[in-house]
Amino acid sequence: MSSMTGNKIKISVFGQSHSEAIGVVIDGLPAGKKLDMGKISAFMERRAPGRSIYSTARKEPDAPEIVSGLVNGVTCGAPLCALIRNRNTRSSDYDNIIDTPRPSHADYSGFVRYGGFNDVAGGGHFSGRLTAPLCFAGAVCMQFLEDMGVKITAHILNIASVYDESYDLSAEEFPDVSAKAFPVISEKAGEKMRTEIDRARMDCDSVGGIIQCAVTGIKAGVGDPMFDGVENLIARNIFAVPAVKGIEFGNGFAAAQLRGSENNDPFCVKNGEIKTVTNNSGGINGGITNGMPVVFSTAFKPTPSIYKEQSSVSLREKTEKKLKIEGRHDPCIVARAVPVIEAVTAFTVLDLLS
Amino acid sequence: MSSMTGNKIKISVFGQSHSEAIGVVIDGLPAGKKLDMGKISAFMERRAPGRSIYSTARKEPDAPEIVSGLVNGVTCGAPLCALIRNRNTRSSDYDNIIDTPRPSHADYSGFVRYGGFNDVAGGGHFSGRLTAPLCFAGAVCMQFLEDMGVKITAHILNIASVYDESYDLSAEEFPDVSAKAFPVISEKAGEKMRTEIDRARMDCDSVGGIIQCAVTGIKAGVGDPMFDGVENLIARNIFAVPAVKGIEFGNGFAAAQLRGSENNDPFCVKNGEIKTVTNNSGGINGGITNGMPVVFSTAFKPTPSIYKEQSSVSLREKTEKKLKIEGRHDPCIVARAVPVIEAVTAFTVLDLLS
Amino acid sequence: MSSMTGNKIKISVFGQSHSEAIGVVIDGLPAGKKLDMGKISAFMERRAPGRSIYSTARKEPDAPEIVSGLVNGVTCGAPLCALIRNRNTRSSDYDNIIDTPRPSHADYSGFVRYGGFNDVAGGGHFSGRLTAPLCFAGAVCMQFLEDMGVKITAHILNIASVYDESYDLSAEEFPDVSAKAFPVISEKAGEKMRTEIDRARMDCDSVGGIIQCAVTGIKAGVGDPMFDGVENLIARNIFAVPAVKGIEFGNGFAAAQLRGSENNDPFCVKNGEIKTVTNNSGGINGGITNGMPVVFSTAFKPTPSIYKEQSSVSLREKTEKKLKIEGRHDPCIVARAVPVIEAVTAFTVLDLLS
Amino acid sequence: MSSMTGNKIKISVFGQSHSEAIGVVIDGLPAGKKLDMGKISAFMERRAPGRSIYSTARKEPDAPEIVSGLVNGVTCGAPLCALIRNRNTRSSDYDNIIDTPRPSHADYSGFVRYGGFNDVAGGGHFSGRLTAPLCFAGAVCMQFLEDMGVKITAHILNIASVYDESYDLSAEEFPDVSAKAFPVISEKAGEKMRTEIDRARMDCDSVGGIIQCAVTGIKAGVGDPMFDGVENLIARNIFAVPAVKGIEFGNGFAAAQLRGSENNDPFCVKNGEIKTVTNNSGGINGGITNGMPVVFSTAFKPTPSIYKEQSSVSLREKTEKKLKIEGRHDPCIVARAVPVIEAVTAFTVLDLLS
Repeated sequence: MSSMTGNKIKISVFGQSHSEAIGVVIDGLPAGKKLDMGKISAFMERRAPGRSIYSTARKEPDAPEIVSGLVNGVTCGAPLCALIRNRNTRSSDYDNIIDTPRPSHADYSGFVRYGGFNDVAGGGHFSGRLTAPLCFAGAVCMQFLEDMGVKITAHILNIASVYDESYDLSAEEFPDVSAKAFPVISEKAGEKMRTEIDRARMDCDSVGGIIQCAVTGIKAGVGDPMFDGVENLIARNIFAVPAVKGIEFGNGFAAAQLRGSENNDPFCVKNGEIKTVTNNSGGINGGITNGMPVVFSTAFKPTPSIYKEQSSVSLREKTEKKLKIEGRHDPCIVARAVPVIEAVTAFTVLDLLS
Repeated sequence: MSSMTGNKIKISVFGQSHSEAIGVVIDGLPAGKKLDMGKISAFMERRAPGRSIYSTARKEPDAPEIVSGLVNGVTCGAPLCALIRNRNTRSSDYDNIIDTPRPSHADYSGFVRYGGFNDVAGGGHFSGRLTAPLCFAGAVCMQFLEDMGVKITAHILNIASVYDESYDLSAEEFPDVSAKAFPVISEKAGEKMRTEIDRARMDCDSVGGIIQCAVTGIKAGVGDPMFDGVENLIARNIFAVPAVKGIEFGNGFAAAQLRGSENNDPFCVKNGEIKTVTNNSGGINGGITNGMPVVFSTAFKPTPSIYKEQSSVSLREKTEKKLKIEGRHDPCIVARAVPVIEAVTAFTVLDLLS
Repeated sequence: MSSMTGNKIKISVFGQSHSEAIGVVIDGLPAGKKLDMGKISAFMERRAPGRSIYSTARKEPDAPEIVSGLVNGVTCGAPLCALIRNRNTRSSDYDNIIDTPRPSHADYSGFVRYGGFNDVAGGGHFSGRLTAPLCFAGAVCMQFLEDMGVKITAHILNIASVYDESYDLSAEEFPDVSAKAFPVISEKAGEKMRTEIDRARMDCDSVGGIIQCAVTGIKAGVGDPMFDGVENLIARNIFAVPAVKGIEFGNGFAAAQLRGSENNDPFCVKNGEIKTVTNNSGGINGGITNGMPVVFSTAFKPTPSIYKEQSSVSLREKTEKKLKIEGRHDPCIVARAVPVIEAVTAFTVLDLLS
Repeated sequence: MSSMTGNKIKISVFGQSHSEAIGVVIDGLPAGKKLDMGKISAFMERRAPGRSIYSTARKEPDAPEIVSGLVNGVTCGAPLCALIRNRNTRSSDYDNIIDTPRPSHADYSGFVRYGGFNDVAGGGHFSGRLTAPLCFAGAVCMQFLEDMGVKITAHILNIASVYDESYDLSAEEFPDVSAKAFPVISEKAGEKMRTEIDRARMDCDSVGGIIQCAVTGIKAGVGDPMFDGVENLIARNIFAVPAVKGIEFGNGFAAAQLRGSENNDPFCVKNGEIKTVTNNSGGINGGITNGMPVVFSTAFKPTPSIYKEQSSVSLREKTEKKLKIEGRHDPCIVARAVPVIEAVTAFTVLDLLS
């Protein structure tokens, strides 16, 4: 098990959905920064459950308690540790899955990995709840990035068959929809997406989606070739977010179908600075930033927790068995995942810049 | 710069396209394994340039010289280092790009990262030539994987608008096309792809594509949650391959448009073993293998080296400038990249299993 | 700042002497082990202050609260996080050192490293108090080591000019003095040491010492050559303990004055197993265990916190200035450091064996 | 096996005493530095065997061939790889030790670690010969350190019972004896040491010693607390040098016998800068430099290769057996180890400063 990442800014995430607490240690933050706790809370609130009818009914304050790393609210260079207590846990909801793994969850792979001692309650350490400490870490790191002129934005690009407007890949700034409860650029697309989610909910089903994220203000020359490039490190960390099954930078998979003359980004000079006319590269060449925004998209599978009856097995008896999942589950976690993607990007980029 | 990766099996890649040599150190290999050098050569031959008219005319033997780590051909536990000499280099081809970066290459990002001291000849350390040591490392690691019953296969899934047959995601074995000069399942699709490549070549242009890769024989319970999962580590390493712009596991981006009831992989019992009926998860849940094959696709952008005139800049004068690339360049590197993807997967999976 | 260590068993320590809490995350523990909390408490009690008149008067319960990683007291594979609240803090004691660094403390080096934002209260993150989470981590890891037949013991070898009996370097088992409040083999030596400590206390001064530690039951073949050998990793981690200034394995510095014929450990066969007659190597050759106990000694400087007036400087004014330290300080921390050395050794060895 | 180290400046060492070549990859060097090859050769010459009658008769040119990382002799940011060919190998000398491990060598621990497949010829990967690539790496890193005003010097402090003058721990500069074939401060002490070595040689025996090393010009505020402090990282890497059995910083083990009032380093102001009057701390407090020189001593055991008959065992038969070592062996490797200690310190410090 390794729930630690980072070279200079190191993140250590702990907790299970129903353990006493979840939390994160951030090691390597520069000293001398007064953290804006209001901003951190506001950021975390974006991920919090129960924000709208489009997310799970489990309502928790999720207020992080910072137990180390600050002196009078200012970072002191020591590791910053934040705890979030788990209060609203109903473990009995998970009794039936101990022997009967939920399809496309980590119940079975975790069972094998940990010899049956994995914590299944609420998904244990694999739970989406663990994205709360990721968000905390990201919210902290964002405050350092802001001082460097780096900004991270994301939006729901796609849910089911509905697409939001894509970021204009040749732009250097992007619409910021973080204030919205349902973060899309086009309200019309958003409405359709919510209709899709509602339909899935009514069908006891779930839907997936795609989140597009952009990092602006990041200078050329960041990252290392081969294994420690910007794509490598963002990809590694983004796959820590539950339900992520794909990532692409710039025009990604679409590039496969283009010709070089269509896909290459011609250079130009803008205001005395070298830029590219288009940004199909997503701001990265050879693993290293080229001065254009870093843009990438992340694919989320539909929440595997659905209320429809599904085919499972008895782990003990190795026989096939039907399963009906109980408890509280989002029919779509994509909206709540938008700040999570921003957060993971934030601590990865701060690490790259440190 | 970090051209090292791995936890137990550590890979350290070195060399530039036109340096004395390129090579790799592999640290952590188990002792006592007699390496089959013929197999290694055959594997590397698959990547070698000049194999067919569909790849660059630069012809090099690429014979690796193993300078350490073996005693009488048997691994002894000490780091294995292999060198490949660069012989057929024509650095003068690159004179014009020193000041004029090639669009969508690492010339400019590398220039900024290394203060103008980066080696541009042949792409330097960013060159596709560096995939030769990756292939060597992969070919070595594959021999250990074979002993564990793990097999890695890949094929060209897509070039331009032409698609090969996809692997059947519910299968546990896959067609092995590694013997083919142009590794596709459907010869008909392959022919159309080659036509697309020929057309691109005649247009002084290039095309991209998608490679699909499968790891079979890998048991359930491999990998760690969060940052060290199978997806995290494969993704991190795959982005070390030049021109890769996206990766997806299982049905990846397509999952975004499905409902949970369509995308979830129901469990079943086959021959007394717990398996899943489908494998939309690509063999991984919560970062950990579930006993089904690990399947993923990788998007390659079209080779940025095209002979058409392109818009660039003078780095010195910060003015716009036209560029015509000379030298020898593949109109499509996807076919040669197939063993590279297999190789990177091999050392990543061996590391996960060590 | 990096308060994380480990490859498979990863330790992340957080907290300052006067922050809300101190604690540790342990990542990578095998699942399925029921932790004996009584043993953990008993182990931590050995380090706790206020145990005897020979240690500081600050009395704290130091009861660790485990907030994650367990299900019904059994490890579940998820990171184990334990918190220890800081209750008995008197930060005002440290007001005068904010501008006036204490000689041979980390006040000044930390001031420069963190631009003056370091937490000086109680020594901040550099405080000996941070050894409590180290002890917790060690106590947990010891329970896994016990199952493998590995045992770790330590004793005070030296304080001031008084020496305890040394471990017999040719032995395979060692006296276990862990039950003693003052862990020495020879009670007579212990009495003299305590007299030295009392004399130092009455003189408003402090004394240092040496701790000898042995790991028994560790099989041959553990560790890696060069940078990841047993000596490398133990040394790296032991220097995390405040006041440690030296480490030696086997007969260490004394070997420098011997001849090869005196220092070499001849092989022999005991009960059908290959052993060495002597163990001047401290159980390690080429970084790898040889089947004999791993034995090493660690030098502790005298506590730099003394009540005598000392020469310091004003950081603000860059002028020389006298300093009198207040607060509660041990005249000798060596006795309390014995379990700390055992603990750090425990998590390092468990990592090596994982 | 892990022969890699470093965070920003990564070192990967490969080779066995009798493999085709030994060498090193250095990853992370800043681009744009013209390397002075003459200085590198001169530095490596200090370690080379056959320099005087006080070292082994095996004479090899040890000329490193740099195969990557440079463009016209200037670092380009890509990994620098240097090879040193093994030419003068007489593997038959080692035939008798395959089954009969040499006492206090890594023959037996390596045999167990690698299941009998370890390369014993000349000590394999454990050979002192592997210090040649360490020296190369150090010589390269030193050229970067010089530009930062950082200098590293070392001398033989002790051999057998003879002591050289110690560095004055309160000084900020130290005698540089690197030009000497036998690097001591006091020629008189050197003569006596050589007499001791000669006596050991005539007795078919060997002697150990202590090397003292100082890093000057290193500013305050370098290093991280806990596990990544200057002591931690130097210690970890220094134990990679064969025959090292101890390390101490500042007055190290001697501090154990002092009182705080004697051992503490009072602050003072010199030329407007905060310094300490003494430097018993060896320039480090809390793992972080304090602006005084970093000073440490390293203990070397006597070379285990002696010509006297020794007690060993037959690995196959598990019976006791006598062994007489043949081949070419130094009666004392301490003089040749002086540049090795400097070199390891150099790449460790450059990493800390990167």
